Amino acid sequence: MNTTVPAKPSAEILAEAARQHAILSEGTAAIYPEKGVHGKDGLFDKLVTSLMENRPLRIKLGMDPTAPDIHLGHTVALNAMRKFQNLGHKVLPLIGNYTALIGDPSGRNSTRPPLTEEQIMQNAETYKEQIFKIIENDPAKCRLMWNGDWLKELSFADTIKLCAQVSVAQLIAKEDFGNRLANQTPISLHEFLYPLMQGYDSIAMQEREGCDIEFGGTDQTFNCLMGRQLMQARGMEPQIVMTFPLLEGLDGVMKMSKSKANYIGVTENPTDMFGKTMSIPDSLLDRWYSLLTTIPAAERPSHPMEAKKKLAHFITARFHGEAAADEARTAFESRFSKREMPTDMPELKLPLEALTTLTDLVVAANFATSKSEARRLIEQGGVKLNGEQHKDPTAPVKLETPFILQVGKLKLAKITA
Amino acid sequence: MNTTVPAKPSAEILAEAARQHAILSEGTAAIYPEKGVHGKDGLFDKLVTSLMENRPLRIKLGMDPTAPDIHLGHTVALNAMRKFQNLGHKVLPLIGNYTALIGDPSGRNSTRPPLTEEQIMQNAETYKEQIFKIIENDPAKCRLMWNGDWLKELSFADTIKLCAQVSVAQLIAKEDFGNRLANQTPISLHEFLYPLMQGYDSIAMQEREGCDIEFGGTDQTFNCLMGRQLMQARGMEPQIVMTFPLLEGLDGVMKMSKSKANYIGVTENPTDMFGKTMSIPDSLLDRWYSLLTTIPAAERPSHPMEAKKKLAHFITARFHGEAAADEARTAFESRFSKREMPTDMPELKLPLEALTTLTDLVVAANFATSKSEARRLIEQGGVKLNGEQHKDPTAPVKLETPFILQVGKLKLAKITA
Repeated sequence: MNTTVPAKPSAEILAEAARQHAILSEGTAAIYPEKGVHGKDGLFDKLVTSLMENRPLRIKLGMDPTAPDIHLGHTVALNAMRKFQNLGHKVLPLIGNYTALIGDPSGRNSTRPPLTEEQIMQNAETYKEQIFKIIENDPAKCRLMWNGDWLKELSFADTIKLCAQVSVAQLIAKEDFGNRLANQTPISLHEFLYPLMQGYDSIAMQEREGCDIEFGGTDQTFNCLMGRQLMQARGMEPQIVMTFPLLEGLDGVMKMSKSKANYIGVTENPTDMFGKTMSIPDSLLDRWYSLLTTIPAAERPSHPMEAKKKLAHFITARFHGEAAADEARTAFESRFSKREMPTDMPELKLPLEALTTLTDLVVAANFATSKSEARRLIEQGGVKLNGEQHKDPTAPVKLETPFILQVGKLKLAKITA
Repeated sequence: MNTTVPAKPSAEILAEAARQHAILSEGTAAIYPEKGVHGKDGLFDKLVTSLMENRPLRIKLGMDPTAPDIHLGHTVALNAMRKFQNLGHKVLPLIGNYTALIGDPSGRNSTRPPLTEEQIMQNAETYKEQIFKIIENDPAKCRLMWNGDWLKELSFADTIKLCAQVSVAQLIAKEDFGNRLANQTPISLHEFLYPLMQGYDSIAMQEREGCDIEFGGTDQTFNCLMGRQLMQARGMEPQIVMTFPLLEGLDGVMKMSKSKANYIGVTENPTDMFGKTMSIPDSLLDRWYSLLTTIPAAERPSHPMEAKKKLAHFITARFHGEAAADEARTAFESRFSKREMPTDMPELKLPLEALTTLTDLVVAANFATSKSEARRLIEQGGVKLNGEQHKDPTAPVKLETPFILQVGKLKLAKITA
């Protein structure tokens, strides 16, 4: 499996590798190694090799079949896999069925109970159903693998040999292990074996199907690099590692996680999926666009409410189709109007073309007695357009009419041109 | 296998347990647990159980078949096993053939190269030949076991479960691991697995034959106690641990070890075995008597030269028989006379009955002009009897005649009564 990159790839190959690299590296948190042979990073080298040898790259992504519900946080890497597929590469989703069978034998980690074979198969079925909404289930472009296939064959002697490749100091240097030792929070020795198990998966996959790249969240960096190290120790061409940012959940702060109830499951109905996306804070928009959509930056609406609608529509359409997404948007808009807006609100016809800033609008609506009062109200967060807070007094007002202007709790108007 | 000790052993049983305990605990470095249920230590409890259930205790002693030469240091624990056999118990020498097959896969420990099956079988044969000079090879009292029988069956899931019972902090607290971490001397992770492997041996032996006690040198305390912990974690009646002092080698300071060339191999010829024993410093006599012989303290000659001869004779006879030991003594004495003593030495007939101290003897031989000069010469180390230095001026002179008195380099005499 040792693929030696010939010294001189052609200009065409370098150009094509650069084109793919630009697409595939977008949205990643890091690529290891950072420096490659051909002037960029490890991904660039792998692309060059793939083009020169005229074979697809094979990308590993491990999944733990303990919780069958995939949420949007999981789809970040799946989206990236889909981009590889679109460029002709092959993805290898790996089900960690062996690990799930064992659970956490120390009993300390209650989120890791041992599962039965039946539960694992059921969860895996659910997984497949969910992931194939994002990645293509075409045998030429995808092979589902199971780590029980090789881990059940691993002897104690094999384990000893594997462990001989890794130093205790290296494991203690891993952030969470180091912190727990420092805080005297117990670490069971089997926890030291999990990163090695993940690394051995890469070895076994390299032997069976090829394993050029491993994907993981940024919290998986250590474990993914372990695979690199163990492959090298066997004289194998090591995988490269691509990590992805952890998606913040609906609260805008914490990592999206089932246990924190700040997630959107990929099987949620279109109404909830659309509505929950509309509820994210504006500060998350850039992240969600870049991690969850393929919409180019130029096509993102500048107004947060509009940007959220487009995002919510994209996400809903991906899992439920265009028609369901359209319907969810209409339902949301009608619910939004009913819930937020009094029916007896005054209607104001304003010369919008003449009002260049939000300050102008507030004054023109008679919701402030002076420009300076209007500015203060805006800066203090008291002004909303279509229910969205706006804090920049100089922002231009570019909304489709009619729209709702609200100042404080009581001053409301439907603005028409 | 859970043996629950009934609350009330009879007075006869307690008395017999106390008798055996006195014999078996002699010469041990430590017994764990130190406090037992029946008022003494763990060994006492095991003896009570054995007597109440009318079954022998089963004693484990692990041996590494990498170096087939057993030296006297190894025989300390074997001697103790023999004492158990003499009282009707059963010993289980365990050959670590699985470990030897693996060696040290990190390649760091050059004393642990992987061995072939043939080498291991050959070494094991040599071991058997050597250990059965000390322990009885009677199937009712001895069963040789091989850890490959169970370790080759150990799955990765079994290993994970085993590791879940042990904390990283516990391993780091082990003295040599802690020191190496502090000194930044690399520890490979597989080294953390060795104590667990040794502990798992006890579990497997408990399931097959019973494992009441594990023997080890004091440097094996951690590993032996690991067996106790792992057995308890499985709900098994845990073994107790008996450790033995590490025998100092011929130099009197360092632990006897092949690599330090301060050892006596059990296959060495009678002449070398006798001669090397004669060369140990007087300060070692007590240790060697208690760790290597069954000679009661009352029967040890007080004079160091005589004590060494008796010790050398005992050790030689154990491995080569009485006749060979007698011959070795005669050969040694004749060599000793030739080498150390001029043939033209004056012969002095002295009234030994009347000379109560060494000082008296030196004065009577005219080797000092006064008692005080004689005392000074003795205290300065200038006086030898049969070639052995004596520094106590008040020591009684109780040697078989004739013997050699030497003062300084030049004054020599053969003393007769």
